[in-house]
Amino acid sequence: MKTFMDENFLLRTQCAQKLYHDYAEGMPILDYHCHINPQEIAEDRQFTNITEVWLGGDHYKWRQMRSNGVDEYYITGDAPDREKFQKWAETLEKLIGNPLYHWSHLELKRYFGYQGYLNGETAEEVWQLCNAKLKTKEMSVRGLIRQSGVTLICTTDDPADSLVWHQKIKEDDTFDVQVLPAWRPDKAANLEASIFPDYIKQLGEVSGVKILTFQNLKEAIVTRMDYFNQRGCLVSDHGLDYVMCAPASEEEVETIFQKGLSGKSLTDLEIAKYKTAFMLFLGRQYHRLGWVMQLHYGCKRNNNSLQFSKLGPDTGFDCINNYTPADQLADFLNNLASTDELPKTILYSLNPNDNAAIGTIIGCFQDSSAAGKLQQGSAWWFNDNKTGMAEQMTSLANLGILSNFVGMLTDSRSFLSYTRHEYFRRILCGLIGGWVENGEYPYDEKALEKIIKGICYHNAVSYFGFDLK
Amino acid sequence: MKTFMDENFLLRTQCAQKLYHDYAEGMPILDYHCHINPQEIAEDRQFTNITEVWLGGDHYKWRQMRSNGVDEYYITGDAPDREKFQKWAETLEKLIGNPLYHWSHLELKRYFGYQGYLNGETAEEVWQLCNAKLKTKEMSVRGLIRQSGVTLICTTDDPADSLVWHQKIKEDDTFDVQVLPAWRPDKAANLEASIFPDYIKQLGEVSGVKILTFQNLKEAIVTRMDYFNQRGCLVSDHGLDYVMCAPASEEEVETIFQKGLSGKSLTDLEIAKYKTAFMLFLGRQYHRLGWVMQLHYGCKRNNNSLQFSKLGPDTGFDCINNYTPADQLADFLNNLASTDELPKTILYSLNPNDNAAIGTIIGCFQDSSAAGKLQQGSAWWFNDNKTGMAEQMTSLANLGILSNFVGMLTDSRSFLSYTRHEYFRRILCGLIGGWVENGEYPYDEKALEKIIKGICYHNAVSYFGFDLK
Amino acid sequence: MKTFMDENFLLRTQCAQKLYHDYAEGMPILDYHCHINPQEIAEDRQFTNITEVWLGGDHYKWRQMRSNGVDEYYITGDAPDREKFQKWAETLEKLIGNPLYHWSHLELKRYFGYQGYLNGETAEEVWQLCNAKLKTKEMSVRGLIRQSGVTLICTTDDPADSLVWHQKIKEDDTFDVQVLPAWRPDKAANLEASIFPDYIKQLGEVSGVKILTFQNLKEAIVTRMDYFNQRGCLVSDHGLDYVMCAPASEEEVETIFQKGLSGKSLTDLEIAKYKTAFMLFLGRQYHRLGWVMQLHYGCKRNNNSLQFSKLGPDTGFDCINNYTPADQLADFLNNLASTDELPKTILYSLNPNDNAAIGTIIGCFQDSSAAGKLQQGSAWWFNDNKTGMAEQMTSLANLGILSNFVGMLTDSRSFLSYTRHEYFRRILCGLIGGWVENGEYPYDEKALEKIIKGICYHNAVSYFGFDLK
Repeated sequence: MKTFMDENFLLRTQCAQKLYHDYAEGMPILDYHCHINPQEIAEDRQFTNITEVWLGGDHYKWRQMRSNGVDEYYITGDAPDREKFQKWAETLEKLIGNPLYHWSHLELKRYFGYQGYLNGETAEEVWQLCNAKLKTKEMSVRGLIRQSGVTLICTTDDPADSLVWHQKIKEDDTFDVQVLPAWRPDKAANLEASIFPDYIKQLGEVSGVKILTFQNLKEAIVTRMDYFNQRGCLVSDHGLDYVMCAPASEEEVETIFQKGLSGKSLTDLEIAKYKTAFMLFLGRQYHRLGWVMQLHYGCKRNNNSLQFSKLGPDTGFDCINNYTPADQLADFLNNLASTDELPKTILYSLNPNDNAAIGTIIGCFQDSSAAGKLQQGSAWWFNDNKTGMAEQMTSLANLGILSNFVGMLTDSRSFLSYTRHEYFRRILCGLIGGWVENGEYPYDEKALEKIIKGICYHNAVSYFGFDLK
Repeated sequence: MKTFMDENFLLRTQCAQKLYHDYAEGMPILDYHCHINPQEIAEDRQFTNITEVWLGGDHYKWRQMRSNGVDEYYITGDAPDREKFQKWAETLEKLIGNPLYHWSHLELKRYFGYQGYLNGETAEEVWQLCNAKLKTKEMSVRGLIRQSGVTLICTTDDPADSLVWHQKIKEDDTFDVQVLPAWRPDKAANLEASIFPDYIKQLGEVSGVKILTFQNLKEAIVTRMDYFNQRGCLVSDHGLDYVMCAPASEEEVETIFQKGLSGKSLTDLEIAKYKTAFMLFLGRQYHRLGWVMQLHYGCKRNNNSLQFSKLGPDTGFDCINNYTPADQLADFLNNLASTDELPKTILYSLNPNDNAAIGTIIGCFQDSSAAGKLQQGSAWWFNDNKTGMAEQMTSLANLGILSNFVGMLTDSRSFLSYTRHEYFRRILCGLIGGWVENGEYPYDEKALEKIIKGICYHNAVSYFGFDLK
Repeated sequence: MKTFMDENFLLRTQCAQKLYHDYAEGMPILDYHCHINPQEIAEDRQFTNITEVWLGGDHYKWRQMRSNGVDEYYITGDAPDREKFQKWAETLEKLIGNPLYHWSHLELKRYFGYQGYLNGETAEEVWQLCNAKLKTKEMSVRGLIRQSGVTLICTTDDPADSLVWHQKIKEDDTFDVQVLPAWRPDKAANLEASIFPDYIKQLGEVSGVKILTFQNLKEAIVTRMDYFNQRGCLVSDHGLDYVMCAPASEEEVETIFQKGLSGKSLTDLEIAKYKTAFMLFLGRQYHRLGWVMQLHYGCKRNNNSLQFSKLGPDTGFDCINNYTPADQLADFLNNLASTDELPKTILYSLNPNDNAAIGTIIGCFQDSSAAGKLQQGSAWWFNDNKTGMAEQMTSLANLGILSNFVGMLTDSRSFLSYTRHEYFRRILCGLIGGWVENGEYPYDEKALEKIIKGICYHNAVSYFGFDLK
């Protein structure tokens, strides 16, 4: 029996072990999509205790505590931190087969040097150990980033954001990891949201464009994109229910925009037409600027309205949406490609059944402007586990070129999440190592080194065009 | 090479073997959902021959015989039992990789002591052996239940049922296995069925409520639920095309009900509105009574109209329905949760692509009223095989807490089907044992024993609240 | 570590190796569905170089070259053949985990005797070797067919086709492999296509029936089916977006047909009604003639309109369509079955999520007219890889009778593709061998030989009713 999570964790064959230890393990990390707060990097935040780090905002853990019947008092409520930690420890020992079991123990091993396993009985010992360690300088936000080997981080930012914290980090000579903004204009896309009129007003003020029409909005958007571009932005991101394609005339879109701006109710088709127009406009802008377009879709959010009214969004009440029509996704991309204005694009669906459809759709729009111009993103959110990652990579390999994959991102709010790159790399090496051991690919060290290092780091650097001399 | 179906069948690792033999194998069986006839328990039926037991009502086997080109004469027709058995034996030997191959041989091994394998050539020997064995007292219905280690059975019953056989079993001191009714009100839900008006009349008579309105129907339902409740019912069950959420006003539902009651034709939307109102009403009642709500959906029934006209329902002509919208399922549950009236709920979809969506939806509604208040049910019907069960448990482990899973049920019409619990337990132990052997969970005997015994038995006892002192 | 693609490639267990080498390897090939050009067989075409064979029309390879950022000049453009080959070789070395990696090396090994692996550095050596070999007589089209052990080929032909090349091959005594036509009437089904009116005119001329009505079309179709039937046709094929069932009256269909014939625009529902009527008519004809009906669906074609305008169809711009409603498929089959006019049918969906739905749908319509009258076709196109084939066979085994499966077809435009039968057979033997090694099926050599040889060859011969004395 293998030791629990030892150095060859998830590496079942000799080839997998060699690929990981010789090629993958030492590669730096390029975190091209995450949700960490740049202010915490600028201020180099230091954490008080492990509950603050682990349970302060991690809705993955909150969901499992609720699944275990833990009272909300110990989750998002006012219970003392030590008690919250106890409830989490008691939940964790039941999480056999869950990625949180591995993520948590990877974090305990790599950042805190804890080699045991956390449960209700060991909670006190882990609590003491972690809290003592968290007091040291190497465990500040910057310390964690540095010891994780991160060279570049892209945050997730609203068009109206001033990007002041990115500027402060850039000006600080004592920290040489690049922290770049990424463009996420969801608030301008969600015409049906109650906050839309207010947001448009705010965006108008920030951009210096009075937004009375969709045409004005596009002008304001361009202004803000230039602002982001000057600050090193190379990536955009969108959160969509599904990728839709309902083309409409300019006049019709303008009429729909006016309805939304005045808070009138809209039909599903009107919303789809506005969002299609909005996304096509942005896609063309991304192409113009050379930015990468990331589309995250297949999610239905805030499903528990009672909890939403108490806790707000991003608190653990989202689910997979299985309405993700392949035909509209293909038509949307074709609309951009038909005038040769399709930007580099990464598709992430929360619906794991979409793997094969995505793999075949991206194959319809590849061209010589980049190797792997269209990408299937790494297994996302609920799929970000051993099975989900292996399935995404197997599907990608079957249908396209795994060797060109831009690989892992943390998508996280936590500074301890860089170990998810280790988790990904072990799964990657386990997969490829298994193929080689089975005689499905030659044991060609040169070729394998290139493939592994490419997926772990180099592909992303060249794909996004980051300047990392 | 391993021996065919020996004591370590499906247990590939040492850890899997230990988990199964030390923890799982000896656990009793709690069969919380099945379709067996309580009259046969009350009367302690004895079977004449193996064809009667195996081919009398098992549409799983009928389907495969038809797939093998066997004439209906040997399936549901008038052929002599020995000839039917021969046709089945000749079909079975071709069923490599099919769960029926394993189920049949588990039954031959455990109940009849037959260690060979059944095919056209061994059919005579098996026929003789089984029929001799079936004459013994231990092979009566009660004998089979006892030797299988069953402690409690929930049948499946219509609201209009008198539950007389349950009463007889309860009053019989010579049999101490609990046989409880379970509530399945599909006939009252299926407004569009031709039998609806007659059924409503019957229900009115049984409940003593004259049903002229939907309001009346609800009163009759409550009356019958109290009746079931007094007889120990703790579980409900529904068979739905898909879980729908089309809310409508009380007035509108009342109007639709009147149309249905008078046999007028209904639109799909009207049907959905009625069923939504019906299900929301029942969900709240289940919450009030502390019953568990089981939703079985994703099935399209009676697809072969020629055979339906000859053989009726449940004869092997059903298929998977792949229209199972996640958004409506989430909205339905939220409707109940929004007033804190969501009962404990188990979701079973016949569409195996729904695993991940279900896993994420249940995570949105968990709370401290129970550990694992919302459950993804065990792989159902067409998915009740090695692959399907492993996928359901892997998905559940990835997205929630496998340790809280209420585990297996037979869902069967046959008294030999208790070996399906063995099949399930072997797959469970194979899965978890594999994880431990790979170093993905520590070899912590105490924790593992608790997890395995919980899933095999204890979780269901505490989840449903059965009284099993 | 296993050697790269040695004699036990994909055969991990001893039992798998025995099954393959003793039973599968030596079986002939019956290629009941492909897209090769009968003229090339009649004329016994000889190829000039490996680029002509490999890159002349293979859109699988074109897609991957585009995914690798190769300019269209080297794909479908005017680049010299040697340069195109270089670009392909450089792409291939990145295709780890892709079936093209295995297909290409199987072809290099079996037809050219090359034991190394192709990449940018070995391209020149492979180029020389292959081109020399291609000059030999055994590498002509007929030579390739003969050395591959092919006994019968079904091509894919339009109803208006004269079948002149089939006739020439039949009359040629020097070649004894049967080359039969197969009926693919997509042009008559696609009422919405711009070419529809012209095509109907052409079909009228060929059949000698003036086609002014849908009734006329049916007469013309019957005339051409008799023509095909006389020339040995036993198989039909259809390419459908999805299998639809929108029944309409004869009058309504006639009206829709008139609109299509006069080039007027049609609603989606009108198109569905026409196609339903067309397919039901043909299904009944197939039943009358004893032909097998093949339905290929779940594909969205020609997604890249810019490339379509330059390169036309079948050039690598198709994708999976995930709208494949199970209810309509079941209703379509039931419509034919309700009058006992359902022909033998093989279902292929490009949407891999359909495996289980198909497996349960075919189970609803099996009868004693044939063992495995309804079949789930082998993993098709984008699914024709190790994972896809294993999943299709596992699903089929779980839900039906794998032993009755008619097995592999090439579906190819290339005469080197017969090695895909080897690939399939290795995966089949790997799967079944694994089950036996795990004790899931007895090691019964007689039964296993029958199963393996059946799936490799005998099942198809008897299912289609080919005359292969």
